Amino acid sequence: MEDSKQKKLVVALGHSALGYDTNQQLEAVRKTARFLADLIESGCQLTITHSNGPQVSMIHKAMTELHRIHIDYSAVPMCVCSAMSQGYAGYDIQNSLKAELLSRGISTPVATILTQVSVDPYDEAFYAPVKKIGRYMSREDAEAEKKKGNYVTEEPGKGWLRVVATPKPLEILEIDTIRLLADNGQAVICCGGGGIPVIVQDHALQGASAVIEKDDIAGKLAADLHADRLLILTSVPNVYLNFGKPNQKPISSMNVETASSCIREGQFGETDMLPKIQAAITYLAANPAGEAIITTADEAVEALAGRAGTVITA
Amino acid sequence: MEDSKQKKLVVALGHSALGYDTNQQLEAVRKTARFLADLIESGCQLTITHSNGPQVSMIHKAMTELHRIHIDYSAVPMCVCSAMSQGYAGYDIQNSLKAELLSRGISTPVATILTQVSVDPYDEAFYAPVKKIGRYMSREDAEAEKKKGNYVTEEPGKGWLRVVATPKPLEILEIDTIRLLADNGQAVICCGGGGIPVIVQDHALQGASAVIEKDDIAGKLAADLHADRLLILTSVPNVYLNFGKPNQKPISSMNVETASSCIREGQFGETDMLPKIQAAITYLAANPAGEAIITTADEAVEALAGRAGTVITA
Repeated sequence: MEDSKQKKLVVALGHSALGYDTNQQLEAVRKTARFLADLIESGCQLTITHSNGPQVSMIHKAMTELHRIHIDYSAVPMCVCSAMSQGYAGYDIQNSLKAELLSRGISTPVATILTQVSVDPYDEAFYAPVKKIGRYMSREDAEAEKKKGNYVTEEPGKGWLRVVATPKPLEILEIDTIRLLADNGQAVICCGGGGIPVIVQDHALQGASAVIEKDDIAGKLAADLHADRLLILTSVPNVYLNFGKPNQKPISSMNVETASSCIREGQFGETDMLPKIQAAITYLAANPAGEAIITTADEAVEALAGRAGTVITA
Repeated sequence: MEDSKQKKLVVALGHSALGYDTNQQLEAVRKTARFLADLIESGCQLTITHSNGPQVSMIHKAMTELHRIHIDYSAVPMCVCSAMSQGYAGYDIQNSLKAELLSRGISTPVATILTQVSVDPYDEAFYAPVKKIGRYMSREDAEAEKKKGNYVTEEPGKGWLRVVATPKPLEILEIDTIRLLADNGQAVICCGGGGIPVIVQDHALQGASAVIEKDDIAGKLAADLHADRLLILTSVPNVYLNFGKPNQKPISSMNVETASSCIREGQFGETDMLPKIQAAITYLAANPAGEAIITTADEAVEALAGRAGTVITA
């Protein structure tokens, strides 16, 4: 990692970095913290974003139960659940990372910035919500959700799920704060769960019932910060051609042109790899000198040294 | 407020600034945001801390219900509830304040910093918890809490309440982040609910089952930032001599010596005014040129101009 010194790195943590429930989270986060501390120790400035699926799902469920049992507690909107989940996951990450740094005698400040991200109320995603959230519901509960104006979808044999829109991020409202901290070498955790989506309406910032994809916001964040590198951690060590087929082949590096042509060929899974490649393209358009790296947490250090993962350049 | 230009101001918001439940919170926060925006518009740099009693109580109750109903969700510790409540209240404040600033054409960045505060595991407060949290419980539920190692207290005729320790804050772990933002004129929301209490143990930062008093942390924060002023908002417009008695008399200004002698006389209510006066004294010891002001949100602008409230100086 000798060549990563002083470099601004945006790290996008996937679900596996945080665990899938409260029990797993503590251990998963400790492991993630060691890896992040390695990067800081090597001289990188880190801006960390993370998914929040299991966290926001738990909070949403808890708030729904509270409202159901104690009618004097009102229903809690999705945007507030998202804010709570940023508090929850952010605390765990900053706590573990700070502790890990302290144990190594490193004094780099670490902090979580609660982040709002504006979205377009006319984003076409609002007309066809596709992001499944929460747990399976009965038909009865699904009907109740529909009456509240929410979208649901049935998965035959499994039950019903609530679906929300995944609009594109327009503006990270706290970017000036994030940038100041990053420019001063602090470690920043932000844009948790894609950020809290808000719609700018007559100078009000109205929380939206939506989810911004974490890959979308990672690309936007790395672009806004003009990061030297964008590291997207996922469950596979590489991007592949012909993924899951007999002729599957890992890609070690490609440029935006190749990536775009692979997209046109339908090479990348629409809900998993495609948004990561698109995030890389968004970022590289803003910083053509940058590098986007897609790999697992375990392979990340090797990937940053150019010995593993998939590197995408302009 | 002409003399408040460029001044660093730490504002401690009490319960009334946020409302006592989710329904009240939105309206209360909008009103608070207008007042905070007035201060920013007049040239103050604001670092805002706030109480979180109703918020953390709601979250704690929701998580308890979730665990009770769905056994696959584990119990959520107090420190995590506190982190969630910082996310919740912080989002509401930063959202409303940012919207209010936008409506006035002011671009000052506003952000919430998730804050951990270290406490001494041998703080005597841990041996005699006094802070009542949550809602009244039945004797049965109280017994269950005791079995989990938690403290409870009975209020005759009303029910049982959980009580937690209120240790003194040692160190604000994210102070370098807060200071950088404050020094650069950004508006910062931090140390919500007194901060998430953590105990430093062999380089781990262990979340503690405790609550740091918001007045204690406000004094510490203003001291650490070397703020020009500390504004503590409460439910009464002044500090009083002989409060609640026929000879009650508002204090317009006093120095630390007078305040200390009033404390010795037992002039200030132990759970309400006393911690505010002590916060002022902590702060003024660090910045003898500063001013601590105690008043209501409604009187605050007048108080900052020296025409209302109680001012304490070194």
